[in-house]
Amino acid sequence: MARGLTLPQQRKEETRVRILRAAYGVFARRGYEAATVEEITAECGIAKGALYGHFASKEELFRTILIEHVRGRAAQTAALLDPGLPLRESMLRIIEASWATCRTDPVWSPIVMEFWALAGRNEWGREAVAAIFDHCSAALVRFLSGAQRAGLVRSDVDVDRAARLLLALNDGLVLQWQTQPDKVDPEEFLGPMADMITGYLAVEDHGARGATPEHTGGR
Amino acid sequence: MARGLTLPQQRKEETRVRILRAAYGVFARRGYEAATVEEITAECGIAKGALYGHFASKEELFRTILIEHVRGRAAQTAALLDPGLPLRESMLRIIEASWATCRTDPVWSPIVMEFWALAGRNEWGREAVAAIFDHCSAALVRFLSGAQRAGLVRSDVDVDRAARLLLALNDGLVLQWQTQPDKVDPEEFLGPMADMITGYLAVEDHGARGATPEHTGGR
Repeated sequence: MARGLTLPQQRKEETRVRILRAAYGVFARRGYEAATVEEITAECGIAKGALYGHFASKEELFRTILIEHVRGRAAQTAALLDPGLPLRESMLRIIEASWATCRTDPVWSPIVMEFWALAGRNEWGREAVAAIFDHCSAALVRFLSGAQRAGLVRSDVDVDRAARLLLALNDGLVLQWQTQPDKVDPEEFLGPMADMITGYLAVEDHGARGATPEHTGGR
Repeated sequence: MARGLTLPQQRKEETRVRILRAAYGVFARRGYEAATVEEITAECGIAKGALYGHFASKEELFRTILIEHVRGRAAQTAALLDPGLPLRESMLRIIEASWATCRTDPVWSPIVMEFWALAGRNEWGREAVAAIFDHCSAALVRFLSGAQRAGLVRSDVDVDRAARLLLALNDGLVLQWQTQPDKVDPEEFLGPMADMITGYLAVEDHGARGATPEHTGGR
């Protein structure tokens, strides 16, 4: 609970959080299409009118869940980073932080995948997914620019493009892992992913392939 | 039309293709959930009973569209490859071939994204997406193993894992491109993607970074 709120503001914030938690459960269980506002209000014991005082529509609820979750996660990841760390270690931290949510919350990635489908089908879904891509890649660009200034990333690397590639590699691998958990063990991919990205970014392969080759069994 | 079919077999195959084409249009327009078998039969002028003689359910129709499309595309890509080509050129061909479908058929990637969502939600969706991941990565493994035998890929690269990473990077980038076509221009990513993968796979950076650096403007 944020400090400095008046009592009515605190109550309002508590209600908002309660609605979001209930909605998260209902969306996870039913999927976006089948979920109803009635089921969400029943789950959190809040009148429909009161819910609409917080969120204009089911769309807005779903979008808010995605965006707040991703922002919180990006801030947590940023706190783990330091442009002075070896580049490969930073890559490991970025990837592991993104995977931590998939591990601790098994409904999170199905929700994200449903958003990907909505992005292909309608404008508000597309805008929501675009917003999280922009948010995540901006966070990565901040880190990569710092690492470039620190001399760890090649000066000719376009950091915007590199951020997008890192995001793409991670999203694609999470999709395979979540679809084939029996075949795609993320632990086995962590080192190779960090090697691939570090090899691309790093000055003179510093901290890349040579330092911790994947065949030694090191992560 | 395959040769060597009897006339009744030819007719049956023609009907099957007609149903698949109509279904493709309906799924693209409505999305999987909202599409109905009635709309598909109306579109291709085939009785519902006749459709069920070919496909047991709407699920089977949707799954067949995905799998046949991906198999056809993988075979086309394989025909473009040659383990004797410089590795970076092969990577460019693989990536470009996958993008060609997104360019020529604007409804293809929304259909794939909808499958990703189904994979997170139900077993038959998960199995269909797993089947295309397996099919595509097996095709890449065949190519990478050949390139490894030809001495172009480092002997310590696990080709199964490398195939999965290449697939992941490509899927993730297509997702960003389709969601933000104004921000993610695939042409700008083609060279960097090929550099990143080639740098990871290649023996002594052969054909990678040094040969065609991205800042020279070469693809």
